[in-house]
Amino acid sequence: MTGKLYIVGVGPGHHDHMTFRAKEVIGESDTIVGYETYVNLVSDLIEEKTVHRYAMTQEVERAHQCIDLAKSGKIVSLVSSGDPGIYGMAGLIYETLAESGWDPKDGLEVEIVPGVSALNSCASIVGSPLMTDFAVVSMSDLLVPWEIIEKRVESAAKGDFVIVIYNPASKKRIHQLQDTRKILLQYRKPTTPVAIIKGAFRESETIVMTDLENLPNHSDKLGMISTVIIGNSSTYSYKDLMINPRGYKSKYNLEEQTNPDLKVQ
Amino acid sequence: MTGKLYIVGVGPGHHDHMTFRAKEVIGESDTIVGYETYVNLVSDLIEEKTVHRYAMTQEVERAHQCIDLAKSGKIVSLVSSGDPGIYGMAGLIYETLAESGWDPKDGLEVEIVPGVSALNSCASIVGSPLMTDFAVVSMSDLLVPWEIIEKRVESAAKGDFVIVIYNPASKKRIHQLQDTRKILLQYRKPTTPVAIIKGAFRESETIVMTDLENLPNHSDKLGMISTVIIGNSSTYSYKDLMINPRGYKSKYNLEEQTNPDLKVQ
Repeated sequence: MTGKLYIVGVGPGHHDHMTFRAKEVIGESDTIVGYETYVNLVSDLIEEKTVHRYAMTQEVERAHQCIDLAKSGKIVSLVSSGDPGIYGMAGLIYETLAESGWDPKDGLEVEIVPGVSALNSCASIVGSPLMTDFAVVSMSDLLVPWEIIEKRVESAAKGDFVIVIYNPASKKRIHQLQDTRKILLQYRKPTTPVAIIKGAFRESETIVMTDLENLPNHSDKLGMISTVIIGNSSTYSYKDLMINPRGYKSKYNLEEQTNPDLKVQ
Repeated sequence: MTGKLYIVGVGPGHHDHMTFRAKEVIGESDTIVGYETYVNLVSDLIEEKTVHRYAMTQEVERAHQCIDLAKSGKIVSLVSSGDPGIYGMAGLIYETLAESGWDPKDGLEVEIVPGVSALNSCASIVGSPLMTDFAVVSMSDLLVPWEIIEKRVESAAKGDFVIVIYNPASKKRIHQLQDTRKILLQYRKPTTPVAIIKGAFRESETIVMTDLENLPNHSDKLGMISTVIIGNSSTYSYKDLMINPRGYKSKYNLEEQTNPDLKVQ
């Protein structure tokens, strides 16, 4: 008897930004697995279901349990905030299944339900920073050597990418964002706009608009539920927003909209 | 009299992956503005509303009209597929408002409603490519000089980023992805997994799993509604999936899950 395994992103910490598909598959599931915090985000949807809550740092065990439950015939939703396809549980599930010789066409059915990730939600709150090419970098060096991350920051700086930073800091992870700032200051102006978004769309949401120069003054806003967006050479601040125009330097003239020859893709 | 302007992403071409907030603000609006194709995606939600449909290449005019309508007291939803905060209309709206001296605290109220963008939806369909740092690059050189894009591709290659390519090709835009492939082949193996996703979550959805070597054999799958995901040095294929393990090279042993000392963040 084979069940089904959904790996579900419920978006930022507010039901409003969950997709219909996420709610649908949670409704269809008999078993819910997830971090305590994530499971609590959807507590109203899972009242009559079997719920397995986990503490942090138990991902491998959790992946195995989800797969075993689904193989035993359960319909399982592994729930997380954001998008499980971005630094989430999708990888560990597929990795575990691949090691066991799983065949997607013939074995356990798996569906990743994408969600609004921190890059989507945080950008929407602070303006329009992602109108141009951007790089997404996690500061977590638990599974990735710091030299690799440092090299990526430098590459992103050289490419003039807007940079979205996941996991910018934790109690033990302090120097990483400081080092990142130092690298970026070799390539970008001290006045480059920076946004720190803590707890996007949660009741505790806190936004700080600052710049590379002044970033160290706001380390109290960094933590496990913070995201940092660092502008590129085209990003400008306007009131409390960070704006990237469309195009490298805005080529079109906003007054020209009556010109029928103006073609803007 | 001041209305309100929502810039709304309805996700990939299927209602399932729209957020509750997107549906809510469309319901609340009396006026809907958008590309013909996007507006048609939500035709069932807008039957009794005033609808302004646009052809491609009229973004600037559309931005002005939305702002004027909202200023005249209308509640306006500017609708697009995906996430308007990623290469979408958010930038042009804020840019136009900023040029007019708009004050977000005191003037027209604007809300960006984030959605599931191509990077989220396409990754969910092909496996788990975005478990590691990634760069998002648009091949459209209408508003960005090609030399800038080329430099970004090279930087992303050097940083060993997984690369998500928006707007990979159009009838007139052919050489860009070919040049990108040549650059990447200087840094990555010809066997590096590549996914082409056309029309994600639409009825016409087509997926091709290939590699850098064989990418040119699939140019018929490239176009305005295609996205390309190119793996990095850690990406591997398994059956029809592209998998990135968590961590640079998976540090943890999947068999060690019973070891209480194993800490995986």
